Amino acid sequence: MALSSYLKKQRNRHLGELKELLAIPSISTDPERAGDVKRAAQWVGDRLRKAGCTKVKVHATKGHPIVYGEWSGAPGRPTILVYGHYDVQPVDPLELWTTDPFSPTLRDGKLYARGASDDKGQVIAHVNALEAHLQNGGCPVNVKFLIEGEEEIGSPSLDGFIDSNKDLLRCDAVVVSDTAMFAKGRPSICYGLRGLAYVEITVTGTDRDLHSGTFGGAVANPANALVTMLDTLKDAKGRIKVKGFYDNVARMTAAERRAFAKLPHSDARFKKSIGAPALQGESGYSTLERIWTRPTLDINGIWSGFTGIGAKTVIPAVAKAKVSMRLVPNQTPAEIVRKLTQHLRSVAPKSVQVEVHDLHGGHAWVTNRDRPSLQAASRAMQRAFGRKAVFVREGGSIPVVATFDKKLRVPCVLMGFGLQDDNLHAPNEKIDLDQFYGGIEAAAYLMEELGEVGIRHAKTKPRTARGR
Amino acid sequence: MALSSYLKKQRNRHLGELKELLAIPSISTDPERAGDVKRAAQWVGDRLRKAGCTKVKVHATKGHPIVYGEWSGAPGRPTILVYGHYDVQPVDPLELWTTDPFSPTLRDGKLYARGASDDKGQVIAHVNALEAHLQNGGCPVNVKFLIEGEEEIGSPSLDGFIDSNKDLLRCDAVVVSDTAMFAKGRPSICYGLRGLAYVEITVTGTDRDLHSGTFGGAVANPANALVTMLDTLKDAKGRIKVKGFYDNVARMTAAERRAFAKLPHSDARFKKSIGAPALQGESGYSTLERIWTRPTLDINGIWSGFTGIGAKTVIPAVAKAKVSMRLVPNQTPAEIVRKLTQHLRSVAPKSVQVEVHDLHGGHAWVTNRDRPSLQAASRAMQRAFGRKAVFVREGGSIPVVATFDKKLRVPCVLMGFGLQDDNLHAPNEKIDLDQFYGGIEAAAYLMEELGEVGIRHAKTKPRTARGR
Repeated sequence: MALSSYLKKQRNRHLGELKELLAIPSISTDPERAGDVKRAAQWVGDRLRKAGCTKVKVHATKGHPIVYGEWSGAPGRPTILVYGHYDVQPVDPLELWTTDPFSPTLRDGKLYARGASDDKGQVIAHVNALEAHLQNGGCPVNVKFLIEGEEEIGSPSLDGFIDSNKDLLRCDAVVVSDTAMFAKGRPSICYGLRGLAYVEITVTGTDRDLHSGTFGGAVANPANALVTMLDTLKDAKGRIKVKGFYDNVARMTAAERRAFAKLPHSDARFKKSIGAPALQGESGYSTLERIWTRPTLDINGIWSGFTGIGAKTVIPAVAKAKVSMRLVPNQTPAEIVRKLTQHLRSVAPKSVQVEVHDLHGGHAWVTNRDRPSLQAASRAMQRAFGRKAVFVREGGSIPVVATFDKKLRVPCVLMGFGLQDDNLHAPNEKIDLDQFYGGIEAAAYLMEELGEVGIRHAKTKPRTARGR
Repeated sequence: MALSSYLKKQRNRHLGELKELLAIPSISTDPERAGDVKRAAQWVGDRLRKAGCTKVKVHATKGHPIVYGEWSGAPGRPTILVYGHYDVQPVDPLELWTTDPFSPTLRDGKLYARGASDDKGQVIAHVNALEAHLQNGGCPVNVKFLIEGEEEIGSPSLDGFIDSNKDLLRCDAVVVSDTAMFAKGRPSICYGLRGLAYVEITVTGTDRDLHSGTFGGAVANPANALVTMLDTLKDAKGRIKVKGFYDNVARMTAAERRAFAKLPHSDARFKKSIGAPALQGESGYSTLERIWTRPTLDINGIWSGFTGIGAKTVIPAVAKAKVSMRLVPNQTPAEIVRKLTQHLRSVAPKSVQVEVHDLHGGHAWVTNRDRPSLQAASRAMQRAFGRKAVFVREGGSIPVVATFDKKLRVPCVLMGFGLQDDNLHAPNEKIDLDQFYGGIEAAAYLMEELGEVGIRHAKTKPRTARGR
């Protein structure tokens, strides 16, 4: 209770600090923001120091820095490693933001800013939780923080950092808050994530743009060719037609299907929440099954020719698309990119040239929901949010979770307290303040629960993407 | 000879004046350039006055101004109406221009600038020609100029202007230089043009961009939907699959097919000139037949989602495409837009909303090559360029030609002296100085030829898009 009442008194400070971090435009994919990304890393390092961490260091990498810090004042007790990221997605289309993405703005109990929920708000909650324990008699577990700046671009530096710092990162469980609760008021623990393969496709026709009158009808149009090629990728039933795409797909268990069916999901409410005229997906699967257990193929971007106001009668020289596929256990990004590339080359007309560039990828992950650490997290969430937690999977990707699973061989606890309508990767990203403050409490309770349980199961065989 | 030697002496002045006009960025489709478009109109008006025209006026319209001027010092002789335009296409992609599109630059005997060939260089040639006659004893025909600023956006004000100024525009023939010669050293007279229907298609899915992980697989992706819809428009043989699209297509005559086959065209050279890996078009037609006599469907622009550097995992809310169709006699833009719209609505999945916006259009046109005015133009081109002119059609559209045909009921002479590789509507537009100076001579000789022949055929039945 002391902890809870302490946390309530800190809310204004916690909010102000979060706003500071959110004001830094740490867009990792944009080379022009490299300085801002570095500034965000330094802010996080300073915050860890202030919270009571030692060994705080902003580690340089080939890309953006990795911030480390720890509190190891509970010898003999378990150690958790909190992972998160301080980098954010790009903000376009900027004109659809109600307020500036890097001027955090409070409206109706929600804080709007890029990164509010993904992941600055969620990772900072754990820092606040550790600080709260230290200000109230000490923390029941040792806590390490690993907060990176390249999550949104596929964490290219993280694997190497983990390999080079196995001792530093030794722990009994990894804790990640970078997902959403099943619904507001319905806490959840996530035990599965999809992977990702993301490519950019370039189709080139002639050596320059051509007048569509002077040349139209006699030359290939790469925009038309790209459209035709992309249209071969999926059939009308939402099935992906790339040869061998489903070869390694691990199907959900019958128990999972039953458990998902019991969750309070409504297609009508889901449809309304996103303003869709109708839902659409792979035949034979429910909405939750489609998002949590089935691979996808989506065009994330496409562009060619004249896209300004008015009419320009041009046959473009080049057409491009960004296409990503969400993967499920046991698909691998390398395998899927290879198969997609083969497919695209096989359907390309000889009147154009095709290049496929692998932009980034990550493995899917799934674990057993009955592991003691997941159960401890479930109790922590129930204490913070006042209702029993459900076990869910997620459609998104946190590739590092599979990495931790493989490299550190400890359980990974995904305790997200964002909401489904947080507009991640989209305009008007936000975090509900109830969720932010509740998340800080949950993070603090998780430290208590894990401190009491101990973590005896560290050596049990995990159910991973590979191990399944 | 006096005229020819006078013109040679004026070349530097003519070049300098053309550069002045080309430096004005009169992009008619761009609302921010309205002031520049007006400035170009005033420049043209001043030039007409200086050349010796009377009744010069920059007529305001609802859009961009129409410039009129005349020289009527040859009573009893025929009157020609020279039509042209001082507006230009947009310049993007700007980064592909070697030099600034509005800083006219001379390289290897070619003047590079947006509008150099389409149409500033060509229309100014006629002004220079009239001036040359007036400086050398007088012009053998009366000459009127009608130079508009909305050709590149479908000439929305021109029809009304013609209807309101029938007396002012009364003439015996219309002369237009807004096309290319068949090849360098191979002068040609154009007796047919394609029409145009140009639409913008908007496909909307959800009410905002969505995270492709959190939602992917369960919602329609409008970019994927647009791609699928666009892919239904053409088959692998280049045939357009919109129902009724070919209903009204007038086929070329057997005589035309024979004449086209005799022209010195090489597919290999054509392919090389545009850097295409291979040519592609409708089965059963040669390259010239495809461009001159067959309708097309091309994506001129497509855009959706994230198009920046790197990877953003977004399901876009909206996807858009600009699609144009070149038309042939006797298709009409209204009919074709209606049929396309019906087609798109019929293939759209119910999970998205579709809008089709008619951006602009124009009728195709074809006339008889044996009309005296076309034969006079053929002789003028032979005198200026030293070789017998061939009769050709063009793949491009000059919608006003069909309008003149219908409203003024006089022959229309298309005497273009641009070249096929002038990069119209594309980066690095240019005009060869040989063509510019030769074009001025040809324009001057046309006035002589028409003055000698007279134009007795003004009342003969034209072979128009409608009349065919």
